[in-house]
Amino acid sequence: MSDPVAAALNRDLPRITQRLVDYVRIASVSTDPAFADGIHAAQEYLIGWLAGAGFTGARLLPSQGHAPVYAEWLGAPGALTILVYGHYDVQPPDPLDKWVSPPFEPQIRDGRLYARGASDDKGPVVVAIETLAAFLRLEGRLPVNVKILIEGEEEIGSMHLAEVVRAHRDLLAADVVISADGARWRADLPTITVGARGMTGFAFAVTTAAKDLHSGRYGGIVGNALHVMAQMIASLRHPDGRIAVAGFYDGIDDPAAAEREALAQLPFDELQFFTALGATPAGEPGFTSLERLFLRPTLEVNGLWGGYTGVGTKTVIPHEARAKLTARLVPGQEPPRVKAAIMAHLERCCPAGARLTFIETRGSTAAYLIPPSHPALAVAERVMGDIAGRPALRVRMGATLPINQIFSAELGIDTIPFSFATADEDYHAPNEFFRLSALEDGVVAWTLLLRALAGDDIAAYRPYHRTVASPHAS
Amino acid sequence: MSDPVAAALNRDLPRITQRLVDYVRIASVSTDPAFADGIHAAQEYLIGWLAGAGFTGARLLPSQGHAPVYAEWLGAPGALTILVYGHYDVQPPDPLDKWVSPPFEPQIRDGRLYARGASDDKGPVVVAIETLAAFLRLEGRLPVNVKILIEGEEEIGSMHLAEVVRAHRDLLAADVVISADGARWRADLPTITVGARGMTGFAFAVTTAAKDLHSGRYGGIVGNALHVMAQMIASLRHPDGRIAVAGFYDGIDDPAAAEREALAQLPFDELQFFTALGATPAGEPGFTSLERLFLRPTLEVNGLWGGYTGVGTKTVIPHEARAKLTARLVPGQEPPRVKAAIMAHLERCCPAGARLTFIETRGSTAAYLIPPSHPALAVAERVMGDIAGRPALRVRMGATLPINQIFSAELGIDTIPFSFATADEDYHAPNEFFRLSALEDGVVAWTLLLRALAGDDIAAYRPYHRTVASPHAS
Repeated sequence: MSDPVAAALNRDLPRITQRLVDYVRIASVSTDPAFADGIHAAQEYLIGWLAGAGFTGARLLPSQGHAPVYAEWLGAPGALTILVYGHYDVQPPDPLDKWVSPPFEPQIRDGRLYARGASDDKGPVVVAIETLAAFLRLEGRLPVNVKILIEGEEEIGSMHLAEVVRAHRDLLAADVVISADGARWRADLPTITVGARGMTGFAFAVTTAAKDLHSGRYGGIVGNALHVMAQMIASLRHPDGRIAVAGFYDGIDDPAAAEREALAQLPFDELQFFTALGATPAGEPGFTSLERLFLRPTLEVNGLWGGYTGVGTKTVIPHEARAKLTARLVPGQEPPRVKAAIMAHLERCCPAGARLTFIETRGSTAAYLIPPSHPALAVAERVMGDIAGRPALRVRMGATLPINQIFSAELGIDTIPFSFATADEDYHAPNEFFRLSALEDGVVAWTLLLRALAGDDIAAYRPYHRTVASPHAS
Repeated sequence: MSDPVAAALNRDLPRITQRLVDYVRIASVSTDPAFADGIHAAQEYLIGWLAGAGFTGARLLPSQGHAPVYAEWLGAPGALTILVYGHYDVQPPDPLDKWVSPPFEPQIRDGRLYARGASDDKGPVVVAIETLAAFLRLEGRLPVNVKILIEGEEEIGSMHLAEVVRAHRDLLAADVVISADGARWRADLPTITVGARGMTGFAFAVTTAAKDLHSGRYGGIVGNALHVMAQMIASLRHPDGRIAVAGFYDGIDDPAAAEREALAQLPFDELQFFTALGATPAGEPGFTSLERLFLRPTLEVNGLWGGYTGVGTKTVIPHEARAKLTARLVPGQEPPRVKAAIMAHLERCCPAGARLTFIETRGSTAAYLIPPSHPALAVAERVMGDIAGRPALRVRMGATLPINQIFSAELGIDTIPFSFATADEDYHAPNEFFRLSALEDGVVAWTLLLRALAGDDIAAYRPYHRTVASPHAS
């Protein structure tokens, strides 16, 4: 290994592995107040680690929720400033009885470290911080200016992150965000995730009477809220799988031929994939499964209920039915317009005698696409390709990352994902694991990424900085 | 009042009212084991009351559930034998906080006795037994032979009644059942309920994958069990309200002109009725609301659920959806054929990639219609008309009465409802009440009914006796 920092990191892998083992022992579950001690322990652990590594100003940024940890090293005048993002919170470990080893007692089996948070996002954060720390330790400096922001609410929708970032725009100002979150498509394939779908959604109720009615005494003479709801939901899709909401696809460009070709190159064993899910391929006609997943929007009922749902029979005519809908959005779709179009569709098909009420009309996130010509994207792609010995493929993700939108809207900059987690590592499920080989690959890649970014001209980043709205206007 | 028994009963109304007050204090809720003491107290109360009134053999008939109370008086050789039916169990009183006075502490307000069970079925049973007791006390005999069967499971579907009746066919043999259960359409209108709808139903599940899937990671490429379910439920009905299941209406005759005319004569303030329900009229085109309710079958989803139904958003693609369906049936429909037709419809419209599973395929009850020429029907109609001073109207009910089928199948005889409860008395709801005027009207009517039945010729009942299947064949 020719790079001295990368070589030192490689020799140091046992200690780095021990670092991750110590870090995942902390039960920093964000969604459940019972884990408040774990959240505080993770915050203190990070502050101590960053301060000890030579970063300055390591502290919590005040927040209404679980405060993010911040630290910086700004000793490279004239060089780029990157904002390294990650999160210290983890998903709840339930169901506990499905874990082979306890979720917060890490165990190594077959070269994989099993623990809640190992892949999402503690392993990738260890890769990033240990690489940065090695530069400071060995060379006394970093190749670029680095600000670090490790948040504590990623698993609960980064609820307070926009507020915190808005309140610290000067502190967090940077040329680009390098995210240590996200996941590679496969461990043996160099890919860069250049986009994520957006999301909008709401819940609604359909009411046909003041209370549930006896199906003998009233059956046949009044509406049934579940029948009305079923008709409304059924009307959202054409029989062939296309969304039937007028205006839903407005603004979406047809996929570029190059993008379709890139997706076709992705190794994807469709039979194995669907067999593992116990499902069969379904969706919009005219697109492959990967095109549907990365390039096309969705409209899904996430939950629906009404009437009697207990054991046995209760002969009621349900007077109310409720459903929750979400849509995953792609570039070109404006979330408020899509939401309004779905609502208008429901209003049109709600029959006389039924009342429609919208509830839980939460916020929306637009789809995100890194500008294809962004210089940091080119750097990340080159590093990934060099290490793999073959060109990195550009892919997207079907899920939604609020942080992309938050950094874009509040700091006016783009986010390049550079994580060494892999999509199959059962994050959000029992027996989450992180490949120890990803520590080895990751520290080399981060070393080369930092060196390469040092060679970039700040001026090349200027065209990609957007003016952000005033905090008072939002 | 010319009839001496009726006159004596009228003078005795205060004591009869006290009898009802004492009886409704007993909390004989059948569905909840916490009320076992109330069930036993009601059984003992009835046995003591019937034995004290001069009936012989007052006892419980052994049952796997809440045993029915039986007693008899067979001192009228050559006269008809009637089986008087009622029930001593009551609905649960929940929600307790909606009661103006506690459910088992009876209170009289505005000529109404408020208590759980006052209308369903303790008031009507007091009318029947007190009338019978007055004959024995004043005349030392009854006009006809009387067998009394008061069951304890009517509110839980008369679960064990068929078994008990089958095991006591000789004991219970009679010419006709006079039921002290059911309800009049209105207190100021003489009606006889000559039919009830039947019922069939089942629950089913639709499955599209082995588990719920993340709508970001899988959205757009797999089926959604709730969308499939919605399409299947929507397909059950035509847009105009007719049931779309092939064969569903097979065997049903068009309503007779006379029956439609009789229904049109029923006072029915449609606007007030639907306004009180918070609903608008809906249903099969070409029929009035009362025709839909009494003469036409229904198919209703009673419950439907799947996916995430808690607070907030969970972006899952539900892998399973469940629904419960019941159909109310009318004469001409064979329950097993209707059930099979609905199942076949669902199988046909379940798309490739989804799995359909039937669950909870409970038994069915056919619709019941008293033979229009039945002599006991003519007697009941005449008595009702004489008291009201205007002819009684024949009506049906939209609900299902298992006892009609049980007595028909196990004893081969018909059931004439002769109850003085009224449909508006909030049975099955808080603040159930019984009109005290119904005690006054009821004892006169029962007196005249018994006298009139004494004049009937047993031979006239023979053509209406059906041969019943052997117990071993069922």
